[in-house]
Formats: sequence, structure tokens, C-alpha cells
Amino acid sequence: MNTSLINQLTESVGTDKVSISEGDLYRHSRDESSHPPVEPDVVVYPESKEEIIEILRIARENDLPVTPFGAGSGLDGHAIPINKGISINFERMNKILSFNPEDLTVTVQPGITRKQLNKSINRHGLQFPVDPGADASIGGMTATNASGTTAVRYGSMRDQVLNLEVILADGSVINTGSRAKKSSSGYNLNGLFVGSEGTLGIMTAITLKLHGIPEHTVTARCTFKTPKACAEAAQSILMSGIQVLRMELVDADSIRQVNLTGEHSFPEAHSLFLEFSGTVASAEEDANLTKELVLEHGGENWERADSAAESNELWRARHELAYSFRHIKGMANSGGDVCVPISQLADMVVYARKLIDESGLLGGVFGHVGDGNFHTLVVYDPGESKQASASARINDLVARKAIEVGGTCSGEHGVGLGKMKYQELEHGAALSVMKSIKQLLDPENRLNPGKIFS
Amino acid sequence: MNTSLINQLTESVGTDKVSISEGDLYRHSRDESSHPPVEPDVVVYPESKEEIIEILRIARENDLPVTPFGAGSGLDGHAIPINKGISINFERMNKILSFNPEDLTVTVQPGITRKQLNKSINRHGLQFPVDPGADASIGGMTATNASGTTAVRYGSMRDQVLNLEVILADGSVINTGSRAKKSSSGYNLNGLFVGSEGTLGIMTAITLKLHGIPEHTVTARCTFKTPKACAEAAQSILMSGIQVLRMELVDADSIRQVNLTGEHSFPEAHSLFLEFSGTVASAEEDANLTKELVLEHGGENWERADSAAESNELWRARHELAYSFRHIKGMANSGGDVCVPISQLADMVVYARKLIDESGLLGGVFGHVGDGNFHTLVVYDPGESKQASASARINDLVARKAIEVGGTCSGEHGVGLGKMKYQELEHGAALSVMKSIKQLLDPENRLNPGKIFS
Repeated sequence: MNTSLINQLTESVGTDKVSISEGDLYRHSRDESSHPPVEPDVVVYPESKEEIIEILRIARENDLPVTPFGAGSGLDGHAIPINKGISINFERMNKILSFNPEDLTVTVQPGITRKQLNKSINRHGLQFPVDPGADASIGGMTATNASGTTAVRYGSMRDQVLNLEVILADGSVINTGSRAKKSSSGYNLNGLFVGSEGTLGIMTAITLKLHGIPEHTVTARCTFKTPKACAEAAQSILMSGIQVLRMELVDADSIRQVNLTGEHSFPEAHSLFLEFSGTVASAEEDANLTKELVLEHGGENWERADSAAESNELWRARHELAYSFRHIKGMANSGGDVCVPISQLADMVVYARKLIDESGLLGGVFGHVGDGNFHTLVVYDPGESKQASASARINDLVARKAIEVGGTCSGEHGVGLGKMKYQELEHGAALSVMKSIKQLLDPENRLNPGKIFS
Repeated sequence: MNTSLINQLTESVGTDKVSISEGDLYRHSRDESSHPPVEPDVVVYPESKEEIIEILRIARENDLPVTPFGAGSGLDGHAIPINKGISINFERMNKILSFNPEDLTVTVQPGITRKQLNKSINRHGLQFPVDPGADASIGGMTATNASGTTAVRYGSMRDQVLNLEVILADGSVINTGSRAKKSSSGYNLNGLFVGSEGTLGIMTAITLKLHGIPEHTVTARCTFKTPKACAEAAQSILMSGIQVLRMELVDADSIRQVNLTGEHSFPEAHSLFLEFSGTVASAEEDANLTKELVLEHGGENWERADSAAESNELWRARHELAYSFRHIKGMANSGGDVCVPISQLADMVVYARKLIDESGLLGGVFGHVGDGNFHTLVVYDPGESKQASASARINDLVARKAIEVGGTCSGEHGVGLGKMKYQELEHGAALSVMKSIKQLLDPENRLNPGKIFS
């Protein structure tokens, strides 16, 4: 262990904020993915922008990489410090810096989680609606341009960020936007830093748009005979202009898995989980129109949640879904996260399901079909190399096919470690522009090195 | 005249696409602003990406700047070739390259205007809703991140662009996105190029999101005793979560001007022009709730448009408004385009109105208050230097104040020539990041030089 490094850090930010404990190094070596863990040299828990500037200075002096760590809920290894160095844990930077209900904005530190944020603001009738399932940190969500079940209505993180305070690799501090709702002044650095996965700078404050909590919500689910019918119904709902809040496809295998592990009893068929919100009249109207469309597409078992409890059960089940596959004892998993043009969705879902079925492995297809974004999750025995390669092959084929039909290899999880291999295929000549921006802003490759680009 | 240059161009793209006619040079020397005109050396009318690659090659060989020209409806001199060189006119590149109604997307060449586009797609029940008033080209709208009356509902151009095909200064071609509705793969080049005003690359194809045409629309207007009451009513409508499609503030002086020039007879008071759309039930509900809020804020003269003709008259008047100030014989004008946090809007509007009143000049305050974005337009006699400087002073003070209260000097017009002087104040240290990106992608400063940065 480099005692000089530890001494410099403790002198700069204080002993209680620097850790080389086994538990801390272990925790910061991994995320929710199956990528091999790598422990950092040291974990720091800063409490202010000034401390992060100090940490970056020390990292430069010791020529060490710096990797930000939010809630650890990432799904593609973004927070794994593959070149070791300093992990910056943001959990003590979880304050609301400025809440402006009259502007429908809030400025937070990156370490606050979305549930912590909503708990503070919901009582004012406002919400931050982006919902990736996990109680991720706002910083992590911003870094990966996360989205989730409500993106069909509210878009991704990039659509919600008005301003970022960012510390660049050289220690200078910039603001990427303002508190105005829109701007045509200068290049759009907001959008560039959102989704840059900690590779261009370290965020220290994030200004977000907020939204009113709708008066009324209707939750419903229905089933279909085939995944194709399910995806086609979703497409027709979108094209009708109905304002869905959530529209989730969950295939029969996934329903079976969630019934098994979560003590639910949903009909074990390909399903759409739907939510509508607005005024009473508009949400009810949207739900009724959707029911008609669903029945036209051969939908069955249309069930409205009659109570908040029933509605909560539905979304809890949807959120548990990925965990129900991921946390099977002794088993590993590999996941996909493609997003394709809506017209390609039905065929893509069928293709993914077929690959899983042919492999004989346990796996599910589910996702945010309102955006053309869906996930595959395939479970394998890490001790069986054939299973591991079969699982990887499925997600690889799905990612390549998604790019081939005009889509992207990542709808919301980010590139991290797992999607680097598709960057050339997806972005072509634009990849060298991206790499040159990285080189421009982080010439020493100090910030989360080895992510997005090799 | 450089005959060698003309020969190279005509040999590459054909005689009929190259012009040095007086009329062409004059037309490409100016836009709708009062910035001093500068004629290009030559105007080229390419019909393909390949021809633009050739034009860029010839520009490099002759060390000449290249300035793109859309519909000429820009408001801050973006298309003025201040260092002369080659103006590229996009009017022959106005095709729809690919229309995908089932994806709710369309790919167009940059020269198509928004009305041309809508004419083609409206019959399929789809629309491209961004509406800056003028029949601007989609390329120009993308280059300035334009928005307009419907931004409160649909956002700005940046929110609508899924992919750009761009030719970089060195002649290489990149795609900045894909046809997927969202992506977390790689850096967000879409957002970087949208709003970059032709300074980073030349767009040759633009993929846009499309939207269903709502079933039902309600248009209404009302008046207020003070601009402050008007802005406060707008703020409360926003905070209530009502889905407005348009919400325009038009101050009494502007109403007077438009009545005068357009043969309208609107009540000459500070007004809100409003529009709601959706299903019959939701649009009617939104309009009724808004009426209640307006009355609570002292609103008067609530009038619904009873027919499509009445509704059209209202929006025609709103669109003519700027022209009614701009095209007064013998007079010049200077305009502002600030966007501020919603909570600052009422005070800002009062501040702007007061400055105009104190100057004794004719001028209006109006704009898209649902976004906190408003314009000032002040008319002056260009022969009277005191008037010119008083007019400039008003817009200068409004821009500086907007930045001071957390906003931006341009909500939708772009930087062009007029807003360069505020870039340092607004962006601080981030400006050097923007400049280094420009340097990275256009090291010879060939692409629309002298815009955004000096």
C-alpha cells in the first residue's frame, strides 16, 4: 500500500473520509453486473466540491485514475476501477442544494438517490419521475443517461438535466448549462456530460427539472398469446397518441420467474403492464382507449388495479423482475439493453426470445417497449463454460441485430465495460470524434479509464 | 473575382449550381436581423452530400470559409458570411429521404422547410410540431436549436433530433445518433451538433421524431391589467400541471402594433394567447381549468376561438407580430431572446417593459412564457445614433439581467453575431471547453467562422 498516497488524502480531506478497509475495497470493486471485480487502492468519501478538487490534485500528483461510485447499482461495470487508483464514493454528498418549486427545478449533490430526492419533494406536489427501478443515485443516473419505466412519458436523464457543475481532469470547474428551461446559447455541454460515465469530468451538482404529481393514475395489465402480438399492441398504442406513463413488456418466462420468487400470481403469459396518469378524465380516457386497442390486438385478461396496493404490487413485481433472475444462488447472468426503432420491436423481441429458447438456458425478455427499449437477461452456471458462452452469444447477437436495424446497443444502462465492443459498429466514424473529445478533456486518461473506449 | 475558384466549383458540381449573380450575392449577405450585410464570394446550390464534400474540399484548397444558408429567416446573423468565401444554399436539398410513420420518424435533407415537411406528413395523421413562426428550413432550425410557440409541450429542436448526418471540416462523414428513441451508447453528439450554428460541421440529413396530430384543439385568449399579472398567471398554469400546447404573452404595445398593421381588433391590453390539445375531454378540461386560474389572477376578456378560422387568425396575428415591428418603413430594430427560470419571469417582463417605456422608443415584449422565454423588439431610426444606442442598450440590459438571474441570453434564436458578447458572462469557464471543441473539429476555422465565438 502506498502510505504516502493515504497520508496525502487524509491530510487533505480528513482521516474519516479515507478508507482502505477490506469491506470498503470489496464494495467498490463491483456493481450489479457479472464483470470481474477489481479493488481500488483507496476509497474516499468527500463531502464537498473542494474536497473533490483536492482528490483530483492528489490523483494527478500520484498519476492515479479516479473512478466515481454512486449507489453501486450500475449494470455494466461503470464503477469498477479496472486500473485501480482512487474510488470516490458520493454517499456523503447527498444534499439538496437548492429547491425551487416555483421554477419546477431542484439542484442536488450527485450522491442523493432518487427515492431520497422524491421523499423530500413529493410533499410539495412535485416529483422527479425518472425511474430505473433500482434506488440509484442521481449522479449515477446522470452519468449513464438512465431512464426506465417512465421514459415513454418523461424521456431520459438527458431530457431532465438543466445544469451540471463539473470538475474537469485539470481541476477547473465548469457549469454546463443554466436554470433556464431551454437555451440556444453556445454548445450543448449538458447533453455531452450526461451519459459520459464519469470519463469527462466529475459532477458535483446537478440541476434537474421537476414535474407535478398527476392527480389520477390508472394501472392495468393484460396478456397476449405471442410476444409479437404484445409488441404490436404496444406499437399501436404509441401511434394512437395516447399518453402512456409506463408501458412494460414482460414475457411469459419472466412472469413465471417473478411469480416463483416474489409470491405473485400473475397469469403466466406475455404481458403488458400499463400506467396512465393525468386528470381523472384524461387518465380514464387513455386507459379506456388503450383497452380497446389491446382487445383489437388479441389481448386477454385485461385487469385494472382496483387499489393503490394492487398497483404497487404490479410495479414492485416489475422492479423485482431483474433481481429474480440475477440473484439465483450460484448462478451468474448476462444482460442486454438494446433500443430499436418502434417498427423493429416486434421482430426483435421474437428474435431474442427464440435465441434464449434455443439455448436451453433460463432467461427473460422484458422492457420499456414504449421507447423500443428492451432487456434480455440470461442465467448461466459460471462453472459451465458452454453455458457462459451461450449466454454471452445471445446478448451479443441481440446487440448486433439492434444496431443493424437502426438502433443502439444500450438504451439506458450505458456502455461501461460490456458494450465497448459495439461502439465501432454503432458509431462508425463518429467514434473517433468521441475519442478525440475524451482526449481533449482528459488527456492523461485519468477519469474512469477503460470505460466506453478501450 | 477568383475565376479559378469558380471554375473548380462549376467543374465539380455543375454550372447551374454555382452563382455569382448580384441577386444571389445580395440575398446571401443578410438575414432577418439588422446586422450589417456581407456578400459571399460565391453561392453554391448543392443537391447531394457528395457535392457538399466537394465544395468543402475546394474550400480547403482555396483556404476559404464556408457558411450554410437555409431559408434566411435567422434573427442574429448566423448565415451572414462575415469573412466572405462560399455560401452553401440548401434550397435544392429539400427532400424527404425516408418517412417511417410506424416509427414516428422522418429523415429529411436540411433545406426542407417546416411547412413543406408538414404538408407531406399531415395527411398521415402525423406532424412535426416545432414552430418558430417563420417557415424556416429544418436545417436552420436544427443549427440554432430553434423552438417557438409549441416548445412548452414538445421542447426544442434538440429534443426532436434523433440523428444527424454531418460532414466535418476535413470532409469525413459521421452520424451523430441512430433511429432509436433513446440511447446511452457513447457521447451525445446529437445534442452537441444541434445548436452549433454550422460551426462544427455541415448537416446533410436530419432524422426527426414525429408526433400524432391531436384529435381536438382549444384556442383562447385573455387580458390582464399588468404584464406582471400576465406572467404570474402563466406561472400558475404551468405549476398546476395543465398540458398547454402554446402559451404566449403579448404585451399591450405589441397588440396595438399588430392591430395597426394586420387589421386585427384584439383588446389592447397585456394578453395571453393559449392553446390546448389532446382528446376532446382532456383539451376541454385543460382549457376550463386554465380559465379558472386566469380569473383568479385577475384575467379579463377570456375569449375562446369558436372556429378554426378564429383560431388561425389568432396565431397568424402572433406570427405577424415580430414582422409588424421589424418591417416598418425606414426603421431598424434590435431584438432580445432571453430565457429565465419561471420564477424570474414576471419581474423580467416588467423590467424589459420599463426600459422600453423609459427610452421613448416603440417596442414590444412578447414570447413563449411557458418556457420562461420572451423577446423584446425595439424599433429605431437607423439615422439617429441616439435611438440606435438606446435600443441596443435595452436589449443589452435585458440579456445581462437574464444571465444574472440564472437564465440564458438566447432561448431559441442562437448566438450568431449578436450574442457573442454574452458568452463569457453566461458560460464562464465552460466557454473555453466550447472553444476547444471548435478548435478540435474545425482547426482551420473554416466552418461559419466568427459565429458564437470571436
